[in-house]
Amino acid sequence: MGPRSVRVGAARRLHKAAERREQGRFLVEGAQAVGAAVAAGALLEVFVGAAAAARHEALLRTAGVPVRVVTEAAAAALSETVTPQGLVGVATLPRHRLADLVAPRLVAVCVAANDPGNAGTVIRSADAAGADAVVFTGSGVDPFGGKCVRSSAGSHFHLPVIVETEPVETIARLRAQGCRIVATSGGAARDIDAAMAAGDLDGPTAWLFGNEAHGLDAAVAAAADATLRVPVYGQAESLNLAVASALCLYASARARRTAGTEGTGGGGRRW
Amino acid sequence: MGPRSVRVGAARRLHKAAERREQGRFLVEGAQAVGAAVAAGALLEVFVGAAAAARHEALLRTAGVPVRVVTEAAAAALSETVTPQGLVGVATLPRHRLADLVAPRLVAVCVAANDPGNAGTVIRSADAAGADAVVFTGSGVDPFGGKCVRSSAGSHFHLPVIVETEPVETIARLRAQGCRIVATSGGAARDIDAAMAAGDLDGPTAWLFGNEAHGLDAAVAAAADATLRVPVYGQAESLNLAVASALCLYASARARRTAGTEGTGGGGRRW
Repeated sequence: MGPRSVRVGAARRLHKAAERREQGRFLVEGAQAVGAAVAAGALLEVFVGAAAAARHEALLRTAGVPVRVVTEAAAAALSETVTPQGLVGVATLPRHRLADLVAPRLVAVCVAANDPGNAGTVIRSADAAGADAVVFTGSGVDPFGGKCVRSSAGSHFHLPVIVETEPVETIARLRAQGCRIVATSGGAARDIDAAMAAGDLDGPTAWLFGNEAHGLDAAVAAAADATLRVPVYGQAESLNLAVASALCLYASARARRTAGTEGTGGGGRRW
Repeated sequence: MGPRSVRVGAARRLHKAAERREQGRFLVEGAQAVGAAVAAGALLEVFVGAAAAARHEALLRTAGVPVRVVTEAAAAALSETVTPQGLVGVATLPRHRLADLVAPRLVAVCVAANDPGNAGTVIRSADAAGADAVVFTGSGVDPFGGKCVRSSAGSHFHLPVIVETEPVETIARLRAQGCRIVATSGGAARDIDAAMAAGDLDGPTAWLFGNEAHGLDAAVAAAADATLRVPVYGQAESLNLAVASALCLYASARARRTAGTEGTGGGGRRW
């Protein structure tokens, strides 16, 4: 199957966000992401070059979906990386909504995220920290784009990744679902360690992370219940967004475990 | 000044690690990194396109080094990014050695780091966590390469970034300087929270971080005093290397402050 075949053409169009929404599908590249899609029952079909087919024979045999062997040119056309792995799957685009969350304990909210690599790393860290969902709101990257999916290392299939248009509405809904809303800003007076020590992170928390260049809009930050910073002990002006968000999410995970409140909410819940 | 001028040619050669070592200089791209180089007294000269010269007039006026106005083609040739900022400085390559460290309290050691973006983010996080140095050892990325320098957001000028060839010798030297050596591995039995609760992170600590694909070599891990993991509460197999290293370094920073031992060692020391 070559790069101009109808099937390859339909899959290639999934490089565009509008087409992903239209088709209800997205691309997952590489063995780790394809394996996670298989495990989640979300894989629909997979395109593979001859070399990659030999390398991933066991994965493809057990994938339970149509395997399309394609030319190296087609595999390269489907890939968005400089060094294609020769293995690209098509997965069902999840349509999770905030309204579907039941008593969330820990939620990461990326507002106007502008770096797909950081966005995917936030999803991966949120998964590792035991979060219940990651929400993308405000105009920013589509979390189902290629670079974001690669950066999450399969975590797109482990927890709900939710796209909501309006940041302030998102905040109101998460608050109605029982979350305390904590904005993050390098300029905040209080830091996450002080908040943890005071017990302020023991309950259900939704963290708001702004974009790397501009932080959070004033209107969004004002809608939060509190604003915290990650302490900086050296001379760095700030932290990388993905790093800062992981430190916040892990502060919540640690607080929750120390407070002995884990397991009473939605921890470990699967969709 | 065009892309074929002698000065631009000499600076362009600094894209190569061997040439950086030979000339004792490295490139810093963008206003943030150039500003940090100025503040550290490390900037030697700066190349700027006409548009960027207008945008960064104040910075250039106070830089105290020769400003070379270049054509956009020359600015693009000096840049390693897809969208050049039109501002590239040449800075003195620091020649820090492990032997120069005095009673280090917190050191990050990247062993065979293979991703320059992650490596730069580790430097930035180590700076923020108040570390005394970042060491790169084993064959891996040169921390003075363009992508690594951009990712550190100026932190290359805030703490010593040290290149040492031999991981096991590096470990022996850091131990001789009073550090407990802690390797990191997703497969470790004990996690950083348990170690922190037991007081194991209160003293001087050197953390060993392996490369993202393969972790630490067995011989390197065996040379450590302990091996710890970052706890994973969800379904993620692992964390991004830059994220995991920040969680470890901040666990040390928090332990040290909770134990009240900060300020007794090298905290805040400048080179």
